[in-house]
Amino acid sequence: MPVHTRPGASVAYANPYSARLAARSGVLRGHTSGLCDGYVQANIVMLRDTWANEFLRFCQLNPKPCPLLDVTEPGVPVFRHLGQDVDVRRDVPRYRVYRNGELADEPADVEALWTDDMVAFAIGCSFSFEHALMEAGVPLRHIAMSRNVAMYRTSVDTIGTSRLAGKLVVSMRPMSVPDAIRAIEITSRMPRAHGAPVHFGDPAAIGIADLAQPDWGDAVPVQPGEVPVFWACGVTPQAVVQQARPELCITHAPGHMLITDLRTAALA
Amino acid sequence: MPVHTRPGASVAYANPYSARLAARSGVLRGHTSGLCDGYVQANIVMLRDTWANEFLRFCQLNPKPCPLLDVTEPGVPVFRHLGQDVDVRRDVPRYRVYRNGELADEPADVEALWTDDMVAFAIGCSFSFEHALMEAGVPLRHIAMSRNVAMYRTSVDTIGTSRLAGKLVVSMRPMSVPDAIRAIEITSRMPRAHGAPVHFGDPAAIGIADLAQPDWGDAVPVQPGEVPVFWACGVTPQAVVQQARPELCITHAPGHMLITDLRTAALA
Repeated sequence: MPVHTRPGASVAYANPYSARLAARSGVLRGHTSGLCDGYVQANIVMLRDTWANEFLRFCQLNPKPCPLLDVTEPGVPVFRHLGQDVDVRRDVPRYRVYRNGELADEPADVEALWTDDMVAFAIGCSFSFEHALMEAGVPLRHIAMSRNVAMYRTSVDTIGTSRLAGKLVVSMRPMSVPDAIRAIEITSRMPRAHGAPVHFGDPAAIGIADLAQPDWGDAVPVQPGEVPVFWACGVTPQAVVQQARPELCITHAPGHMLITDLRTAALA
Repeated sequence: MPVHTRPGASVAYANPYSARLAARSGVLRGHTSGLCDGYVQANIVMLRDTWANEFLRFCQLNPKPCPLLDVTEPGVPVFRHLGQDVDVRRDVPRYRVYRNGELADEPADVEALWTDDMVAFAIGCSFSFEHALMEAGVPLRHIAMSRNVAMYRTSVDTIGTSRLAGKLVVSMRPMSVPDAIRAIEITSRMPRAHGAPVHFGDPAAIGIADLAQPDWGDAVPVQPGEVPVFWACGVTPQAVVQQARPELCITHAPGHMLITDLRTAALA
């Protein structure tokens, strides 16, 4: 069985289920960029009652930042279509708990918070296409540097529902122009992992003032001759929900994703 | 039967065969950009003897500038796979005759020059994907302005054979960044029409000093906020052959292509 490693990672996992069990037991607490290459990683959002129904509509209206991979039945904490024995309450390395839009806790599991009216959403993640890019010979600097990808709030509006609205969040990867063209070709075939980029080049054109100051993740330098390439990011729905201030919202911590049993190639 | 028109064109043709017959009779003498939308247009090169064999190798080594659509049998002036009754000696609106690398004539037909050892090559053309781009809502300024596309010699080397070598020629289209991303997605699915761009952005990175001074075709302005996008161009093999100075080489005149019966969608 192949062992999936990450440059600079201290732990390797034989398969996604092993990685999930490591998260479940508290051994895996770090970000998951580059872990279990070739398997789809998912952003997680959990909401109660009418917020869950409205969030589902928001995802349908904004498929680039919110490509839905799976939705649980209310009160059933299992993603049935994402792999073996996926427990949404324990299999993410780190969670964030927001109460009335304010960060209240960053626990390793949320078992005690799960209720009968709660719905969990799994949303496609740009980590999923990074394996395809690297297989095609497109280097990714944040992985080479063992950093989290750089993420930014933009000036681009999402399509709102009555209570959910806000700005698009993007992830950025610096590339040579030939690699950027290749990356657009590859990611356009993966709409369930955010698809093709939404922008390249001038950050100010989408309202980003300073690439060295990401709103989430780590700054990654852009070298001379390179172009920054921006993809819609699964942090978008988190930011939108946070701004709407529901009583309770649980998400994964940025960069700390659910690793599924789906192969990346199955998204293409 | 639909009538295919071009903005600013004075003549419309019911189908590609009508357009070829118009070229054959001398009525159609202008460039073919935007003519018979939805049908593949081809660059033409004709060579004798060992030059023809070597040129075939050159095309195999350089598929982006030289995507081969059809090759005639030596001495048989018919493209059997490009449509009804395609006469390579008469169906191009204007030819160029090069003797020892020097332009000797620009005739409307080359019947008198065809010999038993001559081979004709049809090479895919970027005009072919312009219909797909416009269908997808990507505006093309040179067509809106009724100009020929702007073409430039770059500093990028092709892969040479013993006698054929030279620099890549590109065509340029200015676009907004979202349109450039969409154009890369669309053209990457059409490798027989040059495929995805080879470059976007800084012209100097591929050795183009001044976009306002194209080496072939017409200059097209790049507006603020737009990015120039560069595709490999079928003028490349013409330029390479011209530089090698064979005794005789016949090509189409730049922008004056052979219109085939192949549907553009059939190339995707």
